[in-house]
Amino acid sequence: METQAPRPFPMNAWYAAAWDYEVKRELLPRTICNKKIVFWRKSDGSVSALEDACWHRLLPLSLGTLKGDEVVCGYHGLVFDGHGRCTRMPSQETLNPSACVRSYPTVEKHRFVWVWPGDPALADPALVPDLHWNNDPEWAGDGKLIHAKCDYRLVIDNLMDLTHETFVHGSSIGNDAVAEAPFVSTHGDRMATISRWMIDIDAPPFWRGQLGKPDNVDRWQIIRFEAPATVAIDVGVAVTGTGAPEGDRSQGVNGYVLNTVTPETDTTCLYFWAFVRNYRIHDQTLTTQTREGVSSIFREDEYVLERQQQAMNEHPGRVFYNLNIDAGSMWARRLIDKMVAEETKPAATLRAAE
Amino acid sequence: METQAPRPFPMNAWYAAAWDYEVKRELLPRTICNKKIVFWRKSDGSVSALEDACWHRLLPLSLGTLKGDEVVCGYHGLVFDGHGRCTRMPSQETLNPSACVRSYPTVEKHRFVWVWPGDPALADPALVPDLHWNNDPEWAGDGKLIHAKCDYRLVIDNLMDLTHETFVHGSSIGNDAVAEAPFVSTHGDRMATISRWMIDIDAPPFWRGQLGKPDNVDRWQIIRFEAPATVAIDVGVAVTGTGAPEGDRSQGVNGYVLNTVTPETDTTCLYFWAFVRNYRIHDQTLTTQTREGVSSIFREDEYVLERQQQAMNEHPGRVFYNLNIDAGSMWARRLIDKMVAEETKPAATLRAAE
Amino acid sequence: METQAPRPFPMNAWYAAAWDYEVKRELLPRTICNKKIVFWRKSDGSVSALEDACWHRLLPLSLGTLKGDEVVCGYHGLVFDGHGRCTRMPSQETLNPSACVRSYPTVEKHRFVWVWPGDPALADPALVPDLHWNNDPEWAGDGKLIHAKCDYRLVIDNLMDLTHETFVHGSSIGNDAVAEAPFVSTHGDRMATISRWMIDIDAPPFWRGQLGKPDNVDRWQIIRFEAPATVAIDVGVAVTGTGAPEGDRSQGVNGYVLNTVTPETDTTCLYFWAFVRNYRIHDQTLTTQTREGVSSIFREDEYVLERQQQAMNEHPGRVFYNLNIDAGSMWARRLIDKMVAEETKPAATLRAAE
Repeated sequence: METQAPRPFPMNAWYAAAWDYEVKRELLPRTICNKKIVFWRKSDGSVSALEDACWHRLLPLSLGTLKGDEVVCGYHGLVFDGHGRCTRMPSQETLNPSACVRSYPTVEKHRFVWVWPGDPALADPALVPDLHWNNDPEWAGDGKLIHAKCDYRLVIDNLMDLTHETFVHGSSIGNDAVAEAPFVSTHGDRMATISRWMIDIDAPPFWRGQLGKPDNVDRWQIIRFEAPATVAIDVGVAVTGTGAPEGDRSQGVNGYVLNTVTPETDTTCLYFWAFVRNYRIHDQTLTTQTREGVSSIFREDEYVLERQQQAMNEHPGRVFYNLNIDAGSMWARRLIDKMVAEETKPAATLRAAE
Repeated sequence: METQAPRPFPMNAWYAAAWDYEVKRELLPRTICNKKIVFWRKSDGSVSALEDACWHRLLPLSLGTLKGDEVVCGYHGLVFDGHGRCTRMPSQETLNPSACVRSYPTVEKHRFVWVWPGDPALADPALVPDLHWNNDPEWAGDGKLIHAKCDYRLVIDNLMDLTHETFVHGSSIGNDAVAEAPFVSTHGDRMATISRWMIDIDAPPFWRGQLGKPDNVDRWQIIRFEAPATVAIDVGVAVTGTGAPEGDRSQGVNGYVLNTVTPETDTTCLYFWAFVRNYRIHDQTLTTQTREGVSSIFREDEYVLERQQQAMNEHPGRVFYNLNIDAGSMWARRLIDKMVAEETKPAATLRAAE
Repeated sequence: METQAPRPFPMNAWYAAAWDYEVKRELLPRTICNKKIVFWRKSDGSVSALEDACWHRLLPLSLGTLKGDEVVCGYHGLVFDGHGRCTRMPSQETLNPSACVRSYPTVEKHRFVWVWPGDPALADPALVPDLHWNNDPEWAGDGKLIHAKCDYRLVIDNLMDLTHETFVHGSSIGNDAVAEAPFVSTHGDRMATISRWMIDIDAPPFWRGQLGKPDNVDRWQIIRFEAPATVAIDVGVAVTGTGAPEGDRSQGVNGYVLNTVTPETDTTCLYFWAFVRNYRIHDQTLTTQTREGVSSIFREDEYVLERQQQAMNEHPGRVFYNLNIDAGSMWARRLIDKMVAEETKPAATLRAAE
């Protein structure tokens, strides 16, 4: 499948392909950046990822079977190892030396299996986005995977501007304070941050319940984007006047909304998210409650984003106007565009542009 | 959404967008001539119509909420008044002066809300097609809206030649007389008329029931097309020999089939119709019976027209042969084509061609 | 509907349009080689085949009615005879002399109705593919029609290489012997044959049941392709050492898998098949059992072939690698390509290329 220029996502990046528990001793097909890939866990626990199309007749390998650590095509029985090399063909002893399918680098970190769809030579595990809260023993929580029918960048836009909470999530986490509060924007080479503090406000229903106190609160939302597709949001409330803006959060509750959004195709994405907290970390009921609560909230976003994608499909080439609130998404998109431009400039490695 | 040249419909015309009762104090999305439009009724009873896409991020405004007489976008809360001017933005005091969406002229007449998708400067309410029977106290009846998956002109063709009744509606209103009777065709600048009288025939089942007499009848069908998309058909039967052809319909029953067909896209339409009569006008049971009876008949047309559209899609560029019976639809299409040619000729107003 | 060059199938060929019993005294629509055709049986038992689109307004004639041996259009009542000539028009005595639709030659043979979509002048009944076993009194059996969403050539590929039985049909007719056994390939102008003998093997479950003996067997698969789309496969097992390879099949059981695959569109086909045998030919229970058994096996193929087609759609222009096992399908495709090239070369008759 060809993508239109300019490509909406860089290829030389780690993208979450699955939650760790999803990759088992069986064949899992996923599409990442328009590439169909079959994943499986080998007997040593590592994860193999191959192009999901047999070299011979294109049948998806994921329709075949796993035999030991190798995949057997479900049509004519060609066998491929985890590196994509064909190790057996029917009715012939000599294997065609060209018989191989593309393999992709993978790494497992922070409860996700990550895949690198671009040039394998550049796949440095140190570049995996920082979502360490997701398996840090000081934090607890859980998340889900949303298969959203929109460009992954619309999810990023949505996360970089939380004023939409007031209008999309008015019944749970939104109130007028979010849309009215000022924010500070900073950015670096791969990062962009939007910080918003709402001082001495009435807590919205969700946070009121987490805090368990009737006082007015200082509420914070510190949104940290890491290019190309990860957003970790430091959120919470503390009793107003107890010093949270200055760094003392002891009279409050703190969570992280962890998000990483993987382009599936140009107009669909795999949106992995988790909500973790550093209080009542052994309370599994609270973990389940908040996971399901956040899941309901994110369904509201999903509906809006899919309708926005449909509207964009009907208005091709439309340029968007930006408001003050769009500062965060503007920076995020600039950093994404820079990554794409770097890997598609004439001198860039050809393998990345495959 | 772009339409292919030449456009199959004029933009500078009033098109029925909804039955009057459909437009309430809530947001109603409709597509008219490939334009997505959101309608709502204001507190003064008048109807607003705006482009159904927020200026900011394109989310359909119809997914938002009505607040007083203004619409609030369901994503970031931008507010637009009935003229399409943005009156509120989140997190900023100064409004971007370009922040507006297109508004469309509307008028309410003959039980329909009409919209003018072309140049607003030309939207003269006097040009609303004549369907006065639909709210004339001397006439009674009711109708429906059919969402038909075909070019609106196929509905016009269908209405301009009623010989199809014999083959499509043989069990209700069709009989061999319709296909065999001669007809007279006349036309003007915006009108085309087909008149057919069937003298001394056996009445078809529907009309036999309306007349309530066993006699042979003179049956008339006087089809009056008003460009671009309205067809009012004067229909009825009278006891034969009592002077109906000469103008004395006192021994008969008379109805009007009122039709106005609004292009939704190039290949779908909103087909508004009503059947009204000038006898037993306080008999609501009869009103309901005839509405449901005509509705069943029109479903037979809808099926044929949608299959015809599918066949046309499979034979792009196919030119149609015309029979004698196609005189009416030929005139209707000439008048439509003339309207389109006038508004798309080089000197025509640019706003109309937007 | 236009097909892309080069066309994947010849037009000048007999293709099975229906099982004989499917064509009755009613209108049967089928699409053959991208052409919509309506079939019906006339009172003399012969089969008419016309383009399924009225000359007047394109409505499919199959939506109309059969009146005697003629078809009446369901919209305006135009009548066409079995040669496609219009014999009646509504409201006019003089028929437009151009009023006709295309007719197609048909012939009924070997329990199928065959149609010739190309140049009628070339439609020689002697060219109907040989499937005589299907109504030979020495053979018994039955079959079905599969509407498969794949290029008809993928079915041919599948039938020309039966090593896939090992991987797709492991539970019924496949075992390792098929993938391991050597084969012999021969070919002629319109024919290609693949012969495979598996000597002294354990019979697979299906054949074990048919043979009714515990002995090891010699198993044969003699695949005979007749261009462009027919494959008759001589299959069976005999007790090993009793002379089957040399021609004495008296200690065995013999069947034929009869297949003819009709292109519907470029990427869908009508796959007609039967399984017939020359033993226990009066055992209707066995006929039903084997028909249903083979039907289950072919559903496994259908699933694989449709997924292969989807994968090919996603990889346009991909050239396939061939293995030794692909010798049969390579020859089949060469013979098909030759037929297409012959009828599309500049000097070829224009009518064939319509």
